[in-house]
Amino acid sequence: MTTRRIESLADGIFSIAMTLLVLNLALPEMGADLTPATELHDLLFGQTHEFFNYALSFILLAIFWSVHHQQFHFIKRTDHTHLWINICSLMFVALVPFSTSLTGDYPDETTAKLFFDLNLFILGTLNALNWTYATNNYRLVDRGLDPRRISAENRRDAIIPVVALLAMVLAFITPLWSSCVYLLVPVMSAHSWFRHKKPGK
Amino acid sequence: MTTRRIESLADGIFSIAMTLLVLNLALPEMGADLTPATELHDLLFGQTHEFFNYALSFILLAIFWSVHHQQFHFIKRTDHTHLWINICSLMFVALVPFSTSLTGDYPDETTAKLFFDLNLFILGTLNALNWTYATNNYRLVDRGLDPRRISAENRRDAIIPVVALLAMVLAFITPLWSSCVYLLVPVMSAHSWFRHKKPGK
Amino acid sequence: MTTRRIESLADGIFSIAMTLLVLNLALPEMGADLTPATELHDLLFGQTHEFFNYALSFILLAIFWSVHHQQFHFIKRTDHTHLWINICSLMFVALVPFSTSLTGDYPDETTAKLFFDLNLFILGTLNALNWTYATNNYRLVDRGLDPRRISAENRRDAIIPVVALLAMVLAFITPLWSSCVYLLVPVMSAHSWFRHKKPGK
Amino acid sequence: MTTRRIESLADGIFSIAMTLLVLNLALPEMGADLTPATELHDLLFGQTHEFFNYALSFILLAIFWSVHHQQFHFIKRTDHTHLWINICSLMFVALVPFSTSLTGDYPDETTAKLFFDLNLFILGTLNALNWTYATNNYRLVDRGLDPRRISAENRRDAIIPVVALLAMVLAFITPLWSSCVYLLVPVMSAHSWFRHKKPGK
Repeated sequence: MTTRRIESLADGIFSIAMTLLVLNLALPEMGADLTPATELHDLLFGQTHEFFNYALSFILLAIFWSVHHQQFHFIKRTDHTHLWINICSLMFVALVPFSTSLTGDYPDETTAKLFFDLNLFILGTLNALNWTYATNNYRLVDRGLDPRRISAENRRDAIIPVVALLAMVLAFITPLWSSCVYLLVPVMSAHSWFRHKKPGK
Repeated sequence: MTTRRIESLADGIFSIAMTLLVLNLALPEMGADLTPATELHDLLFGQTHEFFNYALSFILLAIFWSVHHQQFHFIKRTDHTHLWINICSLMFVALVPFSTSLTGDYPDETTAKLFFDLNLFILGTLNALNWTYATNNYRLVDRGLDPRRISAENRRDAIIPVVALLAMVLAFITPLWSSCVYLLVPVMSAHSWFRHKKPGK
Repeated sequence: MTTRRIESLADGIFSIAMTLLVLNLALPEMGADLTPATELHDLLFGQTHEFFNYALSFILLAIFWSVHHQQFHFIKRTDHTHLWINICSLMFVALVPFSTSLTGDYPDETTAKLFFDLNLFILGTLNALNWTYATNNYRLVDRGLDPRRISAENRRDAIIPVVALLAMVLAFITPLWSSCVYLLVPVMSAHSWFRHKKPGK
Repeated sequence: MTTRRIESLADGIFSIAMTLLVLNLALPEMGADLTPATELHDLLFGQTHEFFNYALSFILLAIFWSVHHQQFHFIKRTDHTHLWINICSLMFVALVPFSTSLTGDYPDETTAKLFFDLNLFILGTLNALNWTYATNNYRLVDRGLDPRRISAENRRDAIIPVVALLAMVLAFITPLWSSCVYLLVPVMSAHSWFRHKKPGK
């Protein structure tokens, strides 16, 4: 059992979850008695929130995918526990279109936002666990891997769980705007990427 | 015709079937006159059963996928019969989202549970047949393959058909709880995995 | 531009089209006032036709996929025309779930059956064209390819278009049963596979 | 982080988006009281426009996919900015089934057409940016890459944005026919492909 197979399943699940997000955008009902011009405007401008959610979830999934691949660049072997951490992680990847849809339909509801935030928190935590498990005592990585790179990746893996916790707190105060805090993730990831490149290479 | 191509089609079908499972989770109707707060609670807590089914089917498909890949690690060639065993097996993989959805919508119905159990029973049997056909007289595997490994895999392949039969019996007694018996599969697979590792390596 | 990329896109489209077929199976309406037991029986036994269609289209797509891969085993290069033959062919692969659904919803209608048969006829013809174009004057295959193998593959590629034409004729006489003629395809392909193996190896 | 992983995610997203296009074709409502024969004719012939849109979007996505792969044939490395250009580009690939569906439902509406055209314009521009960024100062390509090939690819990448702009202008004059201008894309691409082959090889 090589890691190549996990990567291939993961690529499949990530790409499908990312494409299914678009199904959350509402289409006009077929056959309804439309007064097209006005309704189309309502349909498009009435879901600015959904378009924002689509872009946000797409980008967050892309970040998870890129973290997943960077981890697997160093992970050379796999074992039973590692396989199950990954399967659980993919289960929450496939759940993202559902929780994105909830936040789109109930933009003002704390519960909907908490569901979405919890989904990302668990996904981020499993991702961090994947790396910790694999690098602990060089279990699944090469002995020669730079310890600074291991801890740089650890710091980076903490970003999403911390931001998700912050979003949960905000969901109690202002549910409508709480998702905006995720815009910090690309910024912080990029920052951490550059800090991580400099000492490494 | 190499086995690499079958693996690539199988990875695709497994990852899509696993992601389509999430479409079984009910989303709120668009445009209905909602009283959001209460309805959202009902929507989420009213489908605990569906969430359990989602996780169960995802994990069962992940187990089938991992068995498939472990078999293909040893299977070096393919032939016409082997190709058709695999195509039939993938046909029942793609059917899992449908039968999962049936058990979610009719949690108390023996018929719905039997349909789901039968789907898994056929899938498990085809999987076992795949291995028996390939290893019989070393037809598609290398001569050097350890016979103990062949029979360890045979024992492991019997787990899912046996558990599915057990679930069918339970479906007549207590349909609502019969699916819980599948929780034995990960436990027994893990157990069999470790017994299988020790003599092999 | 190597053929590997075309194969990768084709594997994706084939596996998605094969999995989407299952969406044609009707699920119970959510929230309808059901009298579960009877309705579930009606739901399942009322769509025996749909289950047959699901299995038939899955197997036909699997045959197309396997022919596609056997052709690409010999095709070493690609060019602009060849790329477009393949893209058009994939367009009709992706259309199969739609035409399957039509025949399921209108099992007695000649028009629905003709649509399905035409879809398969075009797909089969493009497949045959793919091979003829590639092997004509050894354009995209190696000089050393056995001419008997080329013509064996040509004969095999003719099976689906011919059967589809036969199905079209039958669709005017007995639409409900016309699809059964496709059961000839696996039989004839297997026969042609064995004839094709003997001289080749 | 190698380019192979971006290609694998891209192949997944392209193949899913291309297959999801077919979901835009309207299927008969289940359980409606049909007068089958006439309704089926209406269903099929009433959506000639949708069939045209399906084929058009499928072919445009296939062109984007083939351009993407030809670029990646020369791009040997990746960096953070390049990764994000690609993720944004894939986000607009996944949006194509939605905007295709809009133009199908509102064939006479300027707004719907503008949405579709804007989607393709952004996608085409990101594609061109991908190449410009990668080849600027040989950032991600080999030093030995023929400068004439770089500028030939630049010219070819300009086709879709220019045609999309033209379609936007036409959408104000004759929304119903404006999409036909995209038929220029395959013609112009083929032309540019041949001009590009001759000096290159």
